[in-house]
Amino acid sequence: MNVAMIFYMLGWLLNTIAALMIFPFLVSVYYKEHCGIYFILCALIYAAIGILLTRKHPKNDRFFAKEGYVMTALSWLLLSLVGCMPFYLSGSIPSFTNALFECISGFTTTGASILENVEKLPRCMNFWRCFIQWIGGMGVLVFMLALIPLSGGQDMYIMKAESPGPNVGKLAPKVKKTATYLYIIYFILTALEIVSLVIAGMPLFDAVCTSFTTTSTGGFGIKAASLGAYSPAIQYVVGVFLFLSGLNYSFFFFVWIKRFKDAFAMEEIHGYIIVFIISTIFITGNITGKGYGGEEAFRHAFVQVGSIMTTAGFSSTDFDLWPSFSKSILVLLMLIGGCAGSTCGGIKVSRIIIYLKTVKKELAQLCHPRNVKIIQIDEKPLGHSTLRSANIFFIVYILMFAFSTLLISVDNFDLETNFTAVASAIGNIGPGLALVGPTRNFDLYSDFSKFILMFDMLAGRLELFPLLVLISPATWRKK
Amino acid sequence: MNVAMIFYMLGWLLNTIAALMIFPFLVSVYYKEHCGIYFILCALIYAAIGILLTRKHPKNDRFFAKEGYVMTALSWLLLSLVGCMPFYLSGSIPSFTNALFECISGFTTTGASILENVEKLPRCMNFWRCFIQWIGGMGVLVFMLALIPLSGGQDMYIMKAESPGPNVGKLAPKVKKTATYLYIIYFILTALEIVSLVIAGMPLFDAVCTSFTTTSTGGFGIKAASLGAYSPAIQYVVGVFLFLSGLNYSFFFFVWIKRFKDAFAMEEIHGYIIVFIISTIFITGNITGKGYGGEEAFRHAFVQVGSIMTTAGFSSTDFDLWPSFSKSILVLLMLIGGCAGSTCGGIKVSRIIIYLKTVKKELAQLCHPRNVKIIQIDEKPLGHSTLRSANIFFIVYILMFAFSTLLISVDNFDLETNFTAVASAIGNIGPGLALVGPTRNFDLYSDFSKFILMFDMLAGRLELFPLLVLISPATWRKK
Repeated sequence: MNVAMIFYMLGWLLNTIAALMIFPFLVSVYYKEHCGIYFILCALIYAAIGILLTRKHPKNDRFFAKEGYVMTALSWLLLSLVGCMPFYLSGSIPSFTNALFECISGFTTTGASILENVEKLPRCMNFWRCFIQWIGGMGVLVFMLALIPLSGGQDMYIMKAESPGPNVGKLAPKVKKTATYLYIIYFILTALEIVSLVIAGMPLFDAVCTSFTTTSTGGFGIKAASLGAYSPAIQYVVGVFLFLSGLNYSFFFFVWIKRFKDAFAMEEIHGYIIVFIISTIFITGNITGKGYGGEEAFRHAFVQVGSIMTTAGFSSTDFDLWPSFSKSILVLLMLIGGCAGSTCGGIKVSRIIIYLKTVKKELAQLCHPRNVKIIQIDEKPLGHSTLRSANIFFIVYILMFAFSTLLISVDNFDLETNFTAVASAIGNIGPGLALVGPTRNFDLYSDFSKFILMFDMLAGRLELFPLLVLISPATWRKK
Repeated sequence: MNVAMIFYMLGWLLNTIAALMIFPFLVSVYYKEHCGIYFILCALIYAAIGILLTRKHPKNDRFFAKEGYVMTALSWLLLSLVGCMPFYLSGSIPSFTNALFECISGFTTTGASILENVEKLPRCMNFWRCFIQWIGGMGVLVFMLALIPLSGGQDMYIMKAESPGPNVGKLAPKVKKTATYLYIIYFILTALEIVSLVIAGMPLFDAVCTSFTTTSTGGFGIKAASLGAYSPAIQYVVGVFLFLSGLNYSFFFFVWIKRFKDAFAMEEIHGYIIVFIISTIFITGNITGKGYGGEEAFRHAFVQVGSIMTTAGFSSTDFDLWPSFSKSILVLLMLIGGCAGSTCGGIKVSRIIIYLKTVKKELAQLCHPRNVKIIQIDEKPLGHSTLRSANIFFIVYILMFAFSTLLISVDNFDLETNFTAVASAIGNIGPGLALVGPTRNFDLYSDFSKFILMFDMLAGRLELFPLLVLISPATWRKK
């Protein structure tokens, strides 16, 4: 394990987070909030440690897969630990466990909150919550790739550990260039949404915060009623940007370089859109007349499908009151998630496509054992290792899911609450159903269960394996 | 598709079921119940059709994988259809859907009932319910293998489609001999339990019925309170036989031929026993003092773990009232199931072991990509196709699970009810939680949902694929 190199990189991470804390401080200055001082305090301490750690580049900068995974996991843990301090020190979130939970929920773009009423928080703290999600959105390590001059092949490993989904598809041959493209798309989406929301009548501060948490598919709101606090026009705008943010970023890149045919031929995009439309139609039909008029039913169905499928987790209405069929669709969408190569969590549409094709192939092969078929996506055959890793991902996802649900059941809440709390955490969604429904929060759980859910959020965000590698004894065993 | 051969074999199936219907008829004669006449009526009709279909052996008796799967699925469907007629015709179960549900639940050894009060049924009907489970227990096709003189390699395919679990292990080189061994073990277990139960004070009729549904891990009871209607001694006896019936039959075979070392070295047996003991300990601790004294808590924990893990589904107490942690353990056991090579349903312990080893191997490989490890069970390496088929099984199981839960949610019951109803159906268990808990029944569901659950029971019993092959368009497409 190249410990020197890991410390060096974590040092850069501290420097970065220190620099980013200037933004919430500026917000506090503008709104004349005293608690902004904690951002400066933290920034100074982090920068001091960061500068110490990054004084000189380690001689041995070799970085293998193991270091890549460990580094990824440690970065998110460190970010969450240092990011939560302003909440805790300022007394905005008096319990340290809760402050950490909120921060992990932020950086992992989950959006599950332990706050009874977010509107009581100072503006700078709410800005920080949303900004954290925006930072988390593209993954702190892709982030680092774009910022810190790292040399050689080591970034590939980090990229592999980091990229959301089975295969991001190489947008451009070089990782750093890829990161830049991804960022430009991310910035444009965010900027477009801010403008659209302001035009739709949202105050600028709210528009900035909401755009941060839409584009990152994080879903933190600054209103207790989430999107329910805003006009239908605003809800539609957010719905559209949620839909866009759930698309594979390769799609935007293809559009950008005018390869429209490639963009629209992507099977994952087809799958995503089909599931999106069918779910919206079924829910609209199911809830119309049950407390909602026609337009209202469609709007809430559209926004909630976008919000849950992209794993953002905004709520425009209390969907926990919906009929069981609509709620079951939402639970299924929690598991599916958005496209790979987006900021969404969940299993990802592309993996679901792989699973369906695998089953279809198996059925054909059972009947005709001699006909060997090859699974293709976008007309390219999928390699054995891609299939194996997709299968193993599924197994780990479900095992972790089942085990977490069992562990948090010690708090004696009902199965629906526990099941959807874990679905929400591991899929980086936000709200669940029943006692963790959209009008509730996660504070009901014991500290023990909160730590299980924090683990799930991190594991889900990092595609399960980096965190498992970090805690696996084999990683730390000396040869 | 060799239709002639399929009809011929289904004919033998009809003959067999006609012969078996003599037993419930004899029960009706003994208890002077008029409705026994329907068994004779059905038997005559089935035998007439059966004899017609089996008049002459088809010239072409070639039987490929496709036919094997289709045959397996059709056999269970036919058995269920013909088996339910006495319930329906006699008016014991007035709705045809319900009669079919009860019968499928029987033949698949699920044990989920639509009956409000089983004690209202005539004795011959209750005997038939339990006898059906006993017949279903070892699988009708293994059954047929032992009865009907089939020649050549075709039995292997049926065996593959039929055998519960990823690999039954060849107990003896010839299939027919294997079937004989399995039967002898099955008969001995049943006989031993009948004797033990009678010694423990159970009436003979009850002892026979209970032994039928224990050994087959079916779980139909003839009392509304299931095992709760009997003494602690009887509950312990059933608990012990449940534990034994969940073991891989290879274990008994090894013991029989005095290869004790092989018997006790089986990893699946270790896994099964470990999960069994740990679950019993945790539940005992969790429910002690919560309405149960020490011995009582242990007894109910032991019997329920046995009942749920072996997917029998008896209840000795209303476990739906247990704390959430204990209920979550039971739900997990529903998914795990017993050993492969037993009459249990569920995913099976051996597959769970394969999954855990797969994850462990993947983690090691992520850290050290060049070290290629091979997964072994019982010191034998697992082939690529075994691993692949285990993975695909898991994917299909979860997909079918999720989709079924969504479909039955149209009836607007809560997620806990729907989730555990499907878990119970697909795992061939019997009761679920909440509205389908041990003191309730499945009659609350609409006909639509009942058919979904019937499909799940059959699919779960037949290791998912035969039923999918049967309904897959590719199977019926002409070349």
